[in-house]
Amino acid sequence: MFVHKIKSEGLAHLSYLVGDQDQAAVIDPRRDCELYIRKARKEGCRITHIFETHRNEDLVSGAARLSAMTGAKVYHGPNADGAVSYADTTSEGDCFTLGDLRVEVLETPGHTDDSISLALYDNNFGASAVAVFTGDALFVGDVGRTDFYPDRATEVAGMLFDSLQKLFALGDQAIIHPAHGAGSVCGDNMASREFSTLGYERLNNPMASMRDRDDFIETKLAEHHDQPPYFRLMEHMNLEGDRRDESTLLHPPVLSMEAFEEACREFTVLDVRGVTDFLGAHTPGALCVPEDMVPAYAGWLLNPEEELVLVANDLTQARKTLQHLYRIGYDRVHGMMLTAMPGWAASARAFRNLPAVDVTEVAQRVEKQPSGWTLLDVRKDKEVSEGKVPGAANAFLGELPDGLESFDRTQTITTMCASGARATIAASILLQQGFSNVDVFLGSMDAWKESGLDTES
Amino acid sequence: MFVHKIKSEGLAHLSYLVGDQDQAAVIDPRRDCELYIRKARKEGCRITHIFETHRNEDLVSGAARLSAMTGAKVYHGPNADGAVSYADTTSEGDCFTLGDLRVEVLETPGHTDDSISLALYDNNFGASAVAVFTGDALFVGDVGRTDFYPDRATEVAGMLFDSLQKLFALGDQAIIHPAHGAGSVCGDNMASREFSTLGYERLNNPMASMRDRDDFIETKLAEHHDQPPYFRLMEHMNLEGDRRDESTLLHPPVLSMEAFEEACREFTVLDVRGVTDFLGAHTPGALCVPEDMVPAYAGWLLNPEEELVLVANDLTQARKTLQHLYRIGYDRVHGMMLTAMPGWAASARAFRNLPAVDVTEVAQRVEKQPSGWTLLDVRKDKEVSEGKVPGAANAFLGELPDGLESFDRTQTITTMCASGARATIAASILLQQGFSNVDVFLGSMDAWKESGLDTES
Amino acid sequence: MFVHKIKSEGLAHLSYLVGDQDQAAVIDPRRDCELYIRKARKEGCRITHIFETHRNEDLVSGAARLSAMTGAKVYHGPNADGAVSYADTTSEGDCFTLGDLRVEVLETPGHTDDSISLALYDNNFGASAVAVFTGDALFVGDVGRTDFYPDRATEVAGMLFDSLQKLFALGDQAIIHPAHGAGSVCGDNMASREFSTLGYERLNNPMASMRDRDDFIETKLAEHHDQPPYFRLMEHMNLEGDRRDESTLLHPPVLSMEAFEEACREFTVLDVRGVTDFLGAHTPGALCVPEDMVPAYAGWLLNPEEELVLVANDLTQARKTLQHLYRIGYDRVHGMMLTAMPGWAASARAFRNLPAVDVTEVAQRVEKQPSGWTLLDVRKDKEVSEGKVPGAANAFLGELPDGLESFDRTQTITTMCASGARATIAASILLQQGFSNVDVFLGSMDAWKESGLDTES
Amino acid sequence: MFVHKIKSEGLAHLSYLVGDQDQAAVIDPRRDCELYIRKARKEGCRITHIFETHRNEDLVSGAARLSAMTGAKVYHGPNADGAVSYADTTSEGDCFTLGDLRVEVLETPGHTDDSISLALYDNNFGASAVAVFTGDALFVGDVGRTDFYPDRATEVAGMLFDSLQKLFALGDQAIIHPAHGAGSVCGDNMASREFSTLGYERLNNPMASMRDRDDFIETKLAEHHDQPPYFRLMEHMNLEGDRRDESTLLHPPVLSMEAFEEACREFTVLDVRGVTDFLGAHTPGALCVPEDMVPAYAGWLLNPEEELVLVANDLTQARKTLQHLYRIGYDRVHGMMLTAMPGWAASARAFRNLPAVDVTEVAQRVEKQPSGWTLLDVRKDKEVSEGKVPGAANAFLGELPDGLESFDRTQTITTMCASGARATIAASILLQQGFSNVDVFLGSMDAWKESGLDTES
Repeated sequence: MFVHKIKSEGLAHLSYLVGDQDQAAVIDPRRDCELYIRKARKEGCRITHIFETHRNEDLVSGAARLSAMTGAKVYHGPNADGAVSYADTTSEGDCFTLGDLRVEVLETPGHTDDSISLALYDNNFGASAVAVFTGDALFVGDVGRTDFYPDRATEVAGMLFDSLQKLFALGDQAIIHPAHGAGSVCGDNMASREFSTLGYERLNNPMASMRDRDDFIETKLAEHHDQPPYFRLMEHMNLEGDRRDESTLLHPPVLSMEAFEEACREFTVLDVRGVTDFLGAHTPGALCVPEDMVPAYAGWLLNPEEELVLVANDLTQARKTLQHLYRIGYDRVHGMMLTAMPGWAASARAFRNLPAVDVTEVAQRVEKQPSGWTLLDVRKDKEVSEGKVPGAANAFLGELPDGLESFDRTQTITTMCASGARATIAASILLQQGFSNVDVFLGSMDAWKESGLDTES
Repeated sequence: MFVHKIKSEGLAHLSYLVGDQDQAAVIDPRRDCELYIRKARKEGCRITHIFETHRNEDLVSGAARLSAMTGAKVYHGPNADGAVSYADTTSEGDCFTLGDLRVEVLETPGHTDDSISLALYDNNFGASAVAVFTGDALFVGDVGRTDFYPDRATEVAGMLFDSLQKLFALGDQAIIHPAHGAGSVCGDNMASREFSTLGYERLNNPMASMRDRDDFIETKLAEHHDQPPYFRLMEHMNLEGDRRDESTLLHPPVLSMEAFEEACREFTVLDVRGVTDFLGAHTPGALCVPEDMVPAYAGWLLNPEEELVLVANDLTQARKTLQHLYRIGYDRVHGMMLTAMPGWAASARAFRNLPAVDVTEVAQRVEKQPSGWTLLDVRKDKEVSEGKVPGAANAFLGELPDGLESFDRTQTITTMCASGARATIAASILLQQGFSNVDVFLGSMDAWKESGLDTES
Repeated sequence: MFVHKIKSEGLAHLSYLVGDQDQAAVIDPRRDCELYIRKARKEGCRITHIFETHRNEDLVSGAARLSAMTGAKVYHGPNADGAVSYADTTSEGDCFTLGDLRVEVLETPGHTDDSISLALYDNNFGASAVAVFTGDALFVGDVGRTDFYPDRATEVAGMLFDSLQKLFALGDQAIIHPAHGAGSVCGDNMASREFSTLGYERLNNPMASMRDRDDFIETKLAEHHDQPPYFRLMEHMNLEGDRRDESTLLHPPVLSMEAFEEACREFTVLDVRGVTDFLGAHTPGALCVPEDMVPAYAGWLLNPEEELVLVANDLTQARKTLQHLYRIGYDRVHGMMLTAMPGWAASARAFRNLPAVDVTEVAQRVEKQPSGWTLLDVRKDKEVSEGKVPGAANAFLGELPDGLESFDRTQTITTMCASGARATIAASILLQQGFSNVDVFLGSMDAWKESGLDTES
Repeated sequence: MFVHKIKSEGLAHLSYLVGDQDQAAVIDPRRDCELYIRKARKEGCRITHIFETHRNEDLVSGAARLSAMTGAKVYHGPNADGAVSYADTTSEGDCFTLGDLRVEVLETPGHTDDSISLALYDNNFGASAVAVFTGDALFVGDVGRTDFYPDRATEVAGMLFDSLQKLFALGDQAIIHPAHGAGSVCGDNMASREFSTLGYERLNNPMASMRDRDDFIETKLAEHHDQPPYFRLMEHMNLEGDRRDESTLLHPPVLSMEAFEEACREFTVLDVRGVTDFLGAHTPGALCVPEDMVPAYAGWLLNPEEELVLVANDLTQARKTLQHLYRIGYDRVHGMMLTAMPGWAASARAFRNLPAVDVTEVAQRVEKQPSGWTLLDVRKDKEVSEGKVPGAANAFLGELPDGLESFDRTQTITTMCASGARATIAASILLQQGFSNVDVFLGSMDAWKESGLDTES
């Protein structure tokens, strides 16, 4: 009997392969799903069941593809917001046996109406659940968000409270396996640790340990969560079921500088190199989204219909980016340029660099307030509300492209965030939109606080 | 915060890399320990602590080597049976902090006097232990063996009972991480499942769920466990500390048939191909121990001082064998022949094959009892005691080389075990020792029972 | 500028990735063609050209798939025996430039009418060809077979002679890159060495060094080559162009013994374990074709329309087999059983073993000629014609299934070949067809000769 | 029979594994030599011979280690400049047989007195050499440098000419396998292509095709080659023979920012991230040498006795750097920091960035010549002699640390090279040495020429 956790970095999505003897089930498969087949084979198993704990809004489900490849049936909870075309409905008390392993369905709505949890039993031992797959109901250190039905906010928060009590009734001894880990947009307060039990969460999880239903609901209602625009696409794809082939990931070719230059005229340039690479030198007009930030920000800043051209340092970086994009349904990548900037500049092609300024310099500017200078903080409202640099303007990075009308393109703008990474993305957007005096506060709010400087709220 | 489990197949030894932020600790490192360094680096950590939950008797500890390679200190429990030359002593209540992770020492003797467990806490959350490394005190489905101090059998069984109660006091919510999984010689009744919690074991583990100390002791006293002779070597090496280089694993060359033939004259030939390969054809005089059985039987059948020559199907099989041997301190491998038997036979060199007989044939012989025929069951006493084929002789495989005096080399011997695998090893020993009429009961006791035939006890 | 040789083991098919700066061409791509894309990317190139030196009869071309994946055009020589639906025609003197590299087409018919060679020039250096891709015209140590147009045998042998002279006119300095290496059915006398030059072959290749056109033709006419029945399928597929997805390779699941047993009733069982494994024990009714012999014998012994079930030792062996089968268009694999025979027998399921006899035993039988005993040599006519064991019957393995009518199923048959490998395949066919007294002469003709025994011709 | 080329990137060092049947030889092994053993095993061979074509001055030979690991003897040419402690001497006409392969020694001095070439014959075919390992005598597109004996310059150039004629006498058909490819400091004019033959070089190699001995000598005497100071260490190590373990490569740990900061106080900081990363932001005081430039510039800019601390983007980059350093004998690496600069800056630690200026900006400055501004070209004399930006000062990068006395630390310096990569290294040296107004001409001479601007010589 085995449980393998498969983590998709960036999205912090967790899926599972669970099995015994010659059968295996996959829980919440991601789109690039060949690895489940390989892993199942390695365990001497064939995949016979696929479960979705809920309809994912932050990534493309691989359930339909995996089902087509393996012949395994897909099971989805009741009350999905539309017909999940590729799945059978499973509901409270349904029972599935694989070898000596037993999976039992618990309906645990709240995050979504169709949310289920799957309790895992070992038939060779006693009656207690040994583990439970909690989907987006219960995380390590946090609980699921309940903001997807604004009209029913109180109702669904209460449903989640009730679902948590149902889970705790399985006993303290059950290990939990949620659908997301720290870093996911599905919960802000998850532990960095990815292992826990119902007992540990009942005692130590700030939300799940609440015993009063009304307090719980009140706290949930006060939360704010992001809903990047690509969520709409995911919801649509995850009703329809996506079956396109993973090998499309292989297609985008390496482009010469000439081919790249030509492609730039038509397509969106996405520079996925690191922050300092972009600061040091970049091709004019490129949008900076470092590879490891693609899962979090591509869905805000890019339209899935746009065709993309990548700038990357090397193939590994490009390939990881393609994988990230594939997982969230962005399949239109025309090609990638891997030429380093010295080579690019040596061909007498234009490049830009972006000055990075440090906390000392920014503190001086804040004090002197030079005319025509704006310090633009692109963090989320929630972060800003916990303190910001005195006088800083604020516009959330995800919505920045639409929020620049009020700014004068001739002024000097210093971008900032928590560390300087999102600030660099923001600076690339400003340059794209015609601002010419832009620099980046590297270190940003964290350096500001670390230096003991005053903040305002 | 992360916990990575590293499993050594065959030995079913489990070691762990646990860490947070930039520091990591290794618990019970195996001898080929480069992987801990690689994994720690991948997590952005350096290894700062090495713990041994007890002195291992079934494998060579990598603690001394890993300490030499990383500069990390080794910590070992008190009351080790001799001075662990490479380790500092740690005892009840000692506390180690790595990032936001805290490790606390619990003395949990019984299996050995120096056994400790290590409770794991997440300083960012509440006061409950989130996991505990239980060494050989508590396994998934079983508890540690207590047969290493025959003079103090009752005392140490009682000590283990007390240690278990101390562990359970940490709470049902703690995940357990033992030093062995199913298949280890350190416990016969472990679950195939490798994950559990204190709560699950408290409720469902047949031994650990016992509430009466005297019953527990009585049950432990009735157990029988094997002690292969190589345990003595391990105990010695694990006091001294081994620091030899893993790259010695690379040395044994591929041998031509000529070179192999010459080597055979001097050294022991170990045929690590599968059971059916050996039955089909093998070089005369070879000892059959299939690669995946090397961890379990090399320590019984081979002397660590002997120099070995391997026969394998391919490099992967040979390499796995070298790794198994290295982990238990058998470093003297002269070379390996990878020539398949048709090529060997084509050079007009001698080969042998071993007939496999099935349950129908054996049942007929048992009924007719042809003269000069012996059915030799090489299973352990414990297995045999649960039922055997009527009239079968018994000699445990591990002790077979010394137990053949009473047998007449001219008689016909059919070897059997549970499935036929150990029976094939036994047959190879009989052939080595001059028996010429040998065949193997493929299917063995399991096929016998499956066919509904009578057994005797 | 780079040339990468990609070898497909078993078929001994050689394909090439050649490129400079940011462009690459593939020559004679195989069906599992993702690796060309990966390798081109690693060189910083995109694939812009695909060449076929001739229409392959022994494997499925990947040109159509690769073209669909990359957008690169496919170029094929003139006079193909039908329209190559996915290719443009290229002819003598056509020139293709990739960076500083130049490819020039030479028509070199003889093996087939559409055969071309591709001379490679480095524009940065002098006018000599630095290498030439010779397709099936010139091999290392041999030349292409000319038996595909029996009606025009003399004509095409002469055409090949002329093509060779055209090649040699490029100069001794040119490195040759043929489409096959030693072990291919496309030439019996290739060197084991896979590197050579026009100069070396002109001087040392027994066929290519012939200066007299008539002698050359005469020698070619005397040659005999095999044409396994699957060649027809290849020819058809390679006109149409195959575009099916490689990921189908992933589909066949691991089967439990129950599922395997059920599948056996409907489908053909292919046991791809090694020879000694099959001898030792196998499931009744299985056809033995060891994994590394699949490329050579699947096309003789299996119908591409049959659905297959594999028996393998492990996943690696199964996966290699699936790859071999895929490369020659055998895509219908239902599943694979990886259970070792002791486990199979332990379930009281039936197994068989096959006795292997050695040269001493066979020599005694040949001398005594026991009644009802036949020694069946399954080598090719050409091998048999160079000497066989006195009195042995002969039937070529590839045609054995159809050639057994004249044999009495009650007699004892000992199969032999050169070493015993093909003899084991043959024995499995005899068992399938109802012969019950079968054994295998392990060592076979090579051991016979090595022992200095008499042969007859 | 096989020849495998093993390329060490950066050094462009080529070593070879050549073998037949069960034996293999290694030619010019590099220091990290485990891969030869692995590759030999994969071919079913053991390594029985090790050859050195000459004493390497640009890398640490692995011959002594490989000999210790395999038991194979090392063979080195006569007249080595001192006793090669770990090798036997081999001389003209010596013959070595491995299977059907024959290696014959040709003394081919000139590059060094001990230089030998090794002709390769296939005993199964005719008398022509099929290939020749030419060491540093003959490269693809160039010949060996002859500047190591300044007192005997004419003599050794003539010796090389004679050696080339000896090689050509083997015939046009022989494939050549030199000890270096393009990018090596051992020859400036090698082809990017890594395959050729004696015939091709005789016709097309600008140096080797010279037929007049005096012209050849004259041309050689006019050449200039670099001799980085670490060559002395290599020469010493390659007489003594190095046997230190490769696993030392594993030791340097990942450092936290705190540990890094502390290490900076004692050790040299080497920033191996890319050029744009360094420009964007770096830790103050770091020497910039991008990973792929380490083989070329570490030996100029670093003292092998210094202890190093690396700054890298990730583990892969750090690991490649460690490998480069190991290959040239720089083993003293204390640790590596992988923290990205936003994280570093967020801790309020100091960072610097370096402005990159483009060709337009530099052209304006050159025209205006602002006071106190110097354009510093750090290319080699040879490159500078072919044209430079009017008014630019020149100091070769490799000798820059010692050549800065004449510069005023208060002036503004713009560094340049061919593309901007070496210019960035130079800028990091200037910053280290107390210059505060430094920027980098990205694009440098190539962009200058591409823009059609005037040069002076």
